[in-house]
Amino acid sequence: MNILVTGATGFIGTNLTRELRKQHNLFILGQFDGDPEKLGLPGYIMNDDIKSLADYIKEKHIEGIIHLASLYLTVHKSEQIKDLVSSNVYFGTAVFEAASIAGCVKWFLNTGSIWQNYNVKGMDYNPVNLYAATKQAFIDMAKYYTDVFNIKFCTLKLCDTYGPNDTRKKIFKLFKDISENGELLKMSPGEQLIDILNINDITAGFINLVNLLASDAQLRDEYVLSSGKQIPLKQLAKIFEDVSGRKLNIEWGGRPYREREVMVPWKGETVPGWQPLVSLEDGIASFLRG
Amino acid sequence: MNILVTGATGFIGTNLTRELRKQHNLFILGQFDGDPEKLGLPGYIMNDDIKSLADYIKEKHIEGIIHLASLYLTVHKSEQIKDLVSSNVYFGTAVFEAASIAGCVKWFLNTGSIWQNYNVKGMDYNPVNLYAATKQAFIDMAKYYTDVFNIKFCTLKLCDTYGPNDTRKKIFKLFKDISENGELLKMSPGEQLIDILNINDITAGFINLVNLLASDAQLRDEYVLSSGKQIPLKQLAKIFEDVSGRKLNIEWGGRPYREREVMVPWKGETVPGWQPLVSLEDGIASFLRG
Repeated sequence: MNILVTGATGFIGTNLTRELRKQHNLFILGQFDGDPEKLGLPGYIMNDDIKSLADYIKEKHIEGIIHLASLYLTVHKSEQIKDLVSSNVYFGTAVFEAASIAGCVKWFLNTGSIWQNYNVKGMDYNPVNLYAATKQAFIDMAKYYTDVFNIKFCTLKLCDTYGPNDTRKKIFKLFKDISENGELLKMSPGEQLIDILNINDITAGFINLVNLLASDAQLRDEYVLSSGKQIPLKQLAKIFEDVSGRKLNIEWGGRPYREREVMVPWKGETVPGWQPLVSLEDGIASFLRG
Repeated sequence: MNILVTGATGFIGTNLTRELRKQHNLFILGQFDGDPEKLGLPGYIMNDDIKSLADYIKEKHIEGIIHLASLYLTVHKSEQIKDLVSSNVYFGTAVFEAASIAGCVKWFLNTGSIWQNYNVKGMDYNPVNLYAATKQAFIDMAKYYTDVFNIKFCTLKLCDTYGPNDTRKKIFKLFKDISENGELLKMSPGEQLIDILNINDITAGFINLVNLLASDAQLRDEYVLSSGKQIPLKQLAKIFEDVSGRKLNIEWGGRPYREREVMVPWKGETVPGWQPLVSLEDGIASFLRG
């Protein structure tokens, strides 16, 4: 298949495209000043001219779109709202509009977050933060295109993710840094449950869903990639210590929980035929090797 | 109360503020190059500095916000999507952010459209057009603020509206134009049902909801202002002819129905204590007097 990927140069994108290009022709859609050909794949830089993107999609006979691009902010500042709406609502809408004009796109795989559901009871939408709200807002925009045009749409909601060469300031990166420099890390009391998934499992989940979208299978509007485990942060640190063989200098309770700290992550239906394969111990060992 | 109004210089805004200012202190929030003081009311021009707006809201002790500002497009063009998202998703979010920072705002009255529900069966969201999708997307953005901050939020979904001095190219304006110039108007077959409400009833509905929001009443997330009647477009033309005493030169079926023509408008729960008072005949007579 000919597949257009947004956000391809990010952590998930880099890993996903490395696998996906073995089976499919990938085209990268970059924004603004990005370098879409950094990955050695053909690419297009988005500008405000949606019709030009439609021409590109048509010319390359794009059949599917994987939309990974996202501006992630755990806590937003007022001055970031414009970028948040532009990156997470407008950009995807523009891509969908171009796909609808081009006429050749059969499916659109969107990336969501389990943080769209702060309230773990039921399926109701309760955003943890404004980032999660923009993720939901984009789904509303997409609904117009899927109602009007014959394009399959599915949102893959991700839990927390990790893996080698992840430069994002995520939990294992913090643990690794303090295990090397010995600094004291002040953390919350650490009772919040964490659902964290290795990048290889994430990649496999995306590929499963791509295959389902390209098939005649009846699909839900959304699936979740979840480790299936919910481990207290404190215990996660213990596992990290065991695997790394180094003590982490953490002051538990040294800072309060974040406002709207997610104590229990939301669970949803996972991608049919997919299950996580990488154990936390193996995943952390591979993360530490880099 | 001290109330901040967006979109105050539009058709509904002009009429609503004329009534509302008799009982409340109104402040106008304009966008870009608008003149907020055109209505003889104090105003503020929004720029990208949300914190300055927050200061203004705090300084004026704003207790409620009526959000009427909207970019309306029945059918969008690709190059209008950026403005559509900016006007209908970003702007309202920026106002909500400012309200959350200011801390004094107790309620936020949002304006929606019955076009958010193309499928008349059930409450499910099915946007008629991309404009309606942006209306829903803003509700998802607002959800973050109402979950986190103690601000009441209610969306008032409007059916079609009309009234004297309405410069929008709406159905009665078209009828009036051809009744005066005798031109032939090619229309669809005209079997679509229309739910249209006089501006005086719209204004009264907003004021009712403002009073409810300022009270301790338990409210739904949304209400509808509907005439309670669904009249075929063809019959509406007949009533217009009867009231105006002039024949309309319409070729019914001279053009096809629009794609996604709304044949049966959606109905919802109307504002408690409110009901439409202006008959179509009186409303059209008053429209014709201008």
